[in-house]
Amino acid sequence: MEDNKIKNFKFQNKIMVFHEDPAFGRGPARIMELVRQTNKLSEAYRIMGLSSSKGWKIIKRAQNDLGFPLLTTEIGGKSGGNSKLSQEGEDFLNRYNAFVEELNKEGEKIFKKHFPD
Amino acid sequence: MEDNKIKNFKFQNKIMVFHEDPAFGRGPARIMELVRQTNKLSEAYRIMGLSSSKGWKIIKRAQNDLGFPLLTTEIGGKSGGNSKLSQEGEDFLNRYNAFVEELNKEGEKIFKKHFPD
Repeated sequence: MEDNKIKNFKFQNKIMVFHEDPAFGRGPARIMELVRQTNKLSEAYRIMGLSSSKGWKIIKRAQNDLGFPLLTTEIGGKSGGNSKLSQEGEDFLNRYNAFVEELNKEGEKIFKKHFPD
Repeated sequence: MEDNKIKNFKFQNKIMVFHEDPAFGRGPARIMELVRQTNKLSEAYRIMGLSSSKGWKIIKRAQNDLGFPLLTTEIGGKSGGNSKLSQEGEDFLNRYNAFVEELNKEGEKIFKKHFPD
């Protein structure tokens, strides 16, 4: 490129996977990652700085669109209050993460072609 | 995939190109496309349903981040009020469009790998 100012750009890619309502993206994916690590939905919200009503709205909207539960929460017993990913949620998250990772890797190559430093 | 519900997904990709503030994406790109077609910023806003203050805020924020003007507007004379893309804006938009097109094409292939129907 001739002009010095047209340099050092970067790109960002917000990727949603959905049926009708683009609700599943980085937000729900991050909540799910944190639930996988901590087994606590409240802990996931705390780390992300989300109120539980805001956080649950994010999850609920994604679940409504996808058509299956992303998380399950145990009520009562030893593990009362613990959350974990549903089987479908686990499968979906793994696919989403793999898709995002591969697309971003490919994106870096394509970006350099069009915006060389 | 085993479960019938985990099917027929699509993806959406919001791509920003920027220095520090992710301000240049579909909105500014669309305004610029319409200016290229109509030579009128007011017409671009009208088509997009944007007030001129909202529209100009979108352009200004992108210009501030990128460090060069995206558009120029003629004042007075025969073409008074006409807008066109700046040379740098034209170059940047062409690169952005080519990047987005190629990334989305690649994205379709990668998506099918991870979310086969």
